[in-house]
Amino acid sequence: MTRRVSVVENILSANDRLAADNRARLDEARVFAINLMASPGAGKTSLITRTVEALRDRLRIGVVDGDLASTLDADRVAALGIPAVQVNTGGNCHLDAVMLQSALPQLPLEELDLLIVENVGNLVCPASFKLGVHKDVLIASVPEGDDKPYKYPPMYRGVDALVLNKIDVLGAFDFDVDYFRRGVEVLNPGLAFFPLSCKTGEGLSAWLDWVEGQVRSFKEQG
Amino acid sequence: MTRRVSVVENILSANDRLAADNRARLDEARVFAINLMASPGAGKTSLITRTVEALRDRLRIGVVDGDLASTLDADRVAALGIPAVQVNTGGNCHLDAVMLQSALPQLPLEELDLLIVENVGNLVCPASFKLGVHKDVLIASVPEGDDKPYKYPPMYRGVDALVLNKIDVLGAFDFDVDYFRRGVEVLNPGLAFFPLSCKTGEGLSAWLDWVEGQVRSFKEQG
Repeated sequence: MTRRVSVVENILSANDRLAADNRARLDEARVFAINLMASPGAGKTSLITRTVEALRDRLRIGVVDGDLASTLDADRVAALGIPAVQVNTGGNCHLDAVMLQSALPQLPLEELDLLIVENVGNLVCPASFKLGVHKDVLIASVPEGDDKPYKYPPMYRGVDALVLNKIDVLGAFDFDVDYFRRGVEVLNPGLAFFPLSCKTGEGLSAWLDWVEGQVRSFKEQG
Repeated sequence: MTRRVSVVENILSANDRLAADNRARLDEARVFAINLMASPGAGKTSLITRTVEALRDRLRIGVVDGDLASTLDADRVAALGIPAVQVNTGGNCHLDAVMLQSALPQLPLEELDLLIVENVGNLVCPASFKLGVHKDVLIASVPEGDDKPYKYPPMYRGVDALVLNKIDVLGAFDFDVDYFRRGVEVLNPGLAFFPLSCKTGEGLSAWLDWVEGQVRSFKEQG
């Protein structure tokens, strides 16, 4: 077992080195990058679609879509007319820095302001693998239930912003927003929080302001 | 990298050996065991609660609850007055045969007919680790979306039955049941399928009949 642990640690530190390479490449091209993580079906692709539609006139946006299989997500994003690359992990439960590194050359980085990376739908594994992006964002959703911060603490602990999607169906589910937020606050005090509905558009403007503000602030740092 | 693969293979085959031990222990005690897998929040604990409430007068049921952290699920099940053991994986994304093996001695196996194992909420990793149970069951849910078989094929390919939970909210989500089922059929032809709502009770009876039939058939095999 000692040997197994040391191998896993080697893989993680190799991943961290490649993540640093990715960050350097993104910084060089002046591209601000976000890693979107969530359970399957929480609304990652929907939030990307909404964000692209709202900000495409002000920011040049590209997308990397991670999935075990299929090109369904990249097809949806490419239909918006922006650069999109699908990464199929071949069964792997998360994206890692190698996968992002292989995707970057397929994008016109010098012509982008914002890169959105959609991770594999998984509330556990992606938390352990840095990609080299500037901000990690978690999307929770109302139908998943209000107890998820208590059951999946590593993911909630490690992110820079939290979206709560599907608030349009709050009335149809027993979801106590205060209980949910108390669980988050213990793990990640003061975390930026965006309750919204990709379906109705409610709450989207605060999220869009945050994204655009992050990109502008990054660009101004020169 | 070769070394890494061989270590992972060793871990998996060690897991298979322990899974066989678990199966032998369950068979010896005449306990039929089900492994419930799903995305976070699809309704694993709700289905267990419904199943226990409906069948507790006819079957003696015990539960093993797997989670990264917390005892929320085992508390919910124990409140029903049946034996329940919580396994905290300490960050691991799935249960494995070692974890189930450590849980079994904490249950009165000789006094049970049915053991329900609730895996960690994850649509990828649990598919790779046998536990030694008799049947593997996947719970999908309407809010997750109808594209999940296409995006997470290994999980759909490996199970013995499929529940589609939260059909009470079909009207509130764009979920094409035919598209969903076509995706499943390609991966797992003829898979037993139970659309239901743990909230309203609709469709539950077919699931309960299946579970009870499986236990009876197992018991009759002597």
